[in-house]
Amino acid sequence: VSAAPYDFDADRAVETVADHRFAAAITDRWNVLGGRPNGGYVMGVCLQALTRVLPSPDPLVVSAFFLRPVVPGPAEVRTAVIRSGRRIATGEATLYQDGKESLRVTAAFSDLRQPAGRTVVLAARPELPPPDQAMDLMGGRVIPELSIAQRVEYRVAAWPGWARGEPSGRPSQEFWMRFRDGREPDLLSLASLVDAAAPPVLELGETGSATIELTVHLRAHPAPGWLACRVATRFVIGGYHEEDFEIWDSTGALVAQSRQLALLP
Amino acid sequence: VSAAPYDFDADRAVETVADHRFAAAITDRWNVLGGRPNGGYVMGVCLQALTRVLPSPDPLVVSAFFLRPVVPGPAEVRTAVIRSGRRIATGEATLYQDGKESLRVTAAFSDLRQPAGRTVVLAARPELPPPDQAMDLMGGRVIPELSIAQRVEYRVAAWPGWARGEPSGRPSQEFWMRFRDGREPDLLSLASLVDAAAPPVLELGETGSATIELTVHLRAHPAPGWLACRVATRFVIGGYHEEDFEIWDSTGALVAQSRQLALLP
Repeated sequence: VSAAPYDFDADRAVETVADHRFAAAITDRWNVLGGRPNGGYVMGVCLQALTRVLPSPDPLVVSAFFLRPVVPGPAEVRTAVIRSGRRIATGEATLYQDGKESLRVTAAFSDLRQPAGRTVVLAARPELPPPDQAMDLMGGRVIPELSIAQRVEYRVAAWPGWARGEPSGRPSQEFWMRFRDGREPDLLSLASLVDAAAPPVLELGETGSATIELTVHLRAHPAPGWLACRVATRFVIGGYHEEDFEIWDSTGALVAQSRQLALLP
Repeated sequence: VSAAPYDFDADRAVETVADHRFAAAITDRWNVLGGRPNGGYVMGVCLQALTRVLPSPDPLVVSAFFLRPVVPGPAEVRTAVIRSGRRIATGEATLYQDGKESLRVTAAFSDLRQPAGRTVVLAARPELPPPDQAMDLMGGRVIPELSIAQRVEYRVAAWPGWARGEPSGRPSQEFWMRFRDGREPDLLSLASLVDAAAPPVLELGETGSATIELTVHLRAHPAPGWLACRVATRFVIGGYHEEDFEIWDSTGALVAQSRQLALLP
């Protein structure tokens, strides 16, 4: 086997160790603030295992419950096929570290190149300047703890308040996103990228957000190029809050939607 | 044991048959068009079983995958505790009919009376006339096939286009909702009620919507009284579409949010 050419693919690789059992290595190359592997990345490892056991090619809807902190190092993923239907195949993947269950993923796969009905789109994509006229959110800085920002590039029309030390009180953001190493987006990477950006509660002066559950809807195969993203939180209640995410591809098509329930630190 | 006083409680009752195994009877009293039991109701049976095995009192986030059509009649629910943590307990419930898995529910429970942080609400509740000045959507009609409308009352400010045979092209709706028999809302009923209304795609001239996955966030214990609801679909792509639902209680507090991925018929 040749080495995978792109970081995202190399770092999600799983190796079959038995029927429905896979070995994985969680890297420290997708860490978020706090020095923890990004939840979307870890979920991507589980999805990678599911692609091996489900007969349908495309993730359609994914739900992940984050049970324990995941740390860089070895992990085992166990899978099960829940139902293999005519249009939709549903499976489960569980990630273990040190023998303890850390992440439970349930996902329905289908074939998104086989449309199942008509298309009506009633919302508009983010209004952003072209990527080459937008600002790199990292501005060339390297924050070692935030290794995900060495893998994913973010471009914005204007500095967010939190990045200037002046949280705006408006927990929403629009921005461009892509892999820095040139890997083009696909459905599997969209499922991880919906969790790859700064949480909008930073605009409320918060320092982070811990995901409890993340649901992703994959809606269409993305075209190559930059991804236009929109993220917002509207309801923080007793510390719990939702985070809604949309990804639009370079042709202006909505390709993924997600919602997570998270807790303030 | 005395009979449960309210339909919603009687029809979700589960009986322990063994450790983590429960017997249930799916009734025909919550049917939607097509004569099938409402998915939110069936999910409620699974949640009822989970309340028996999880140490935390309140559902916080629930994800349900609808695998096969459920029919009125006997069912078995099997449960498992995935993790019982300090703040959050997570479990799984699976509903079987005729030995086949029909519904897979994963849920995290917590204690919503123990706030875990601050509250910031950035959206407004639906603008509706008071319930006694709003119109009963059923207008006294009884559609035998639609038995859920004999259990749940809906009041609207104006007739929706689909109800006049003139779909508006705008797949969104605001309305009041309550149980007809006087049962007050609680977290368990909110989790079912997010799926109890007419799908907004009726306003696109469609005749229904089949849920693939439903995620519910329970945000606060509801006050007694009418529930103000808002439902919308924004993206129908190749037949697949999301449906977002909010429920606000009679004091004007957001108490539940949900999103489902569904397929046009």
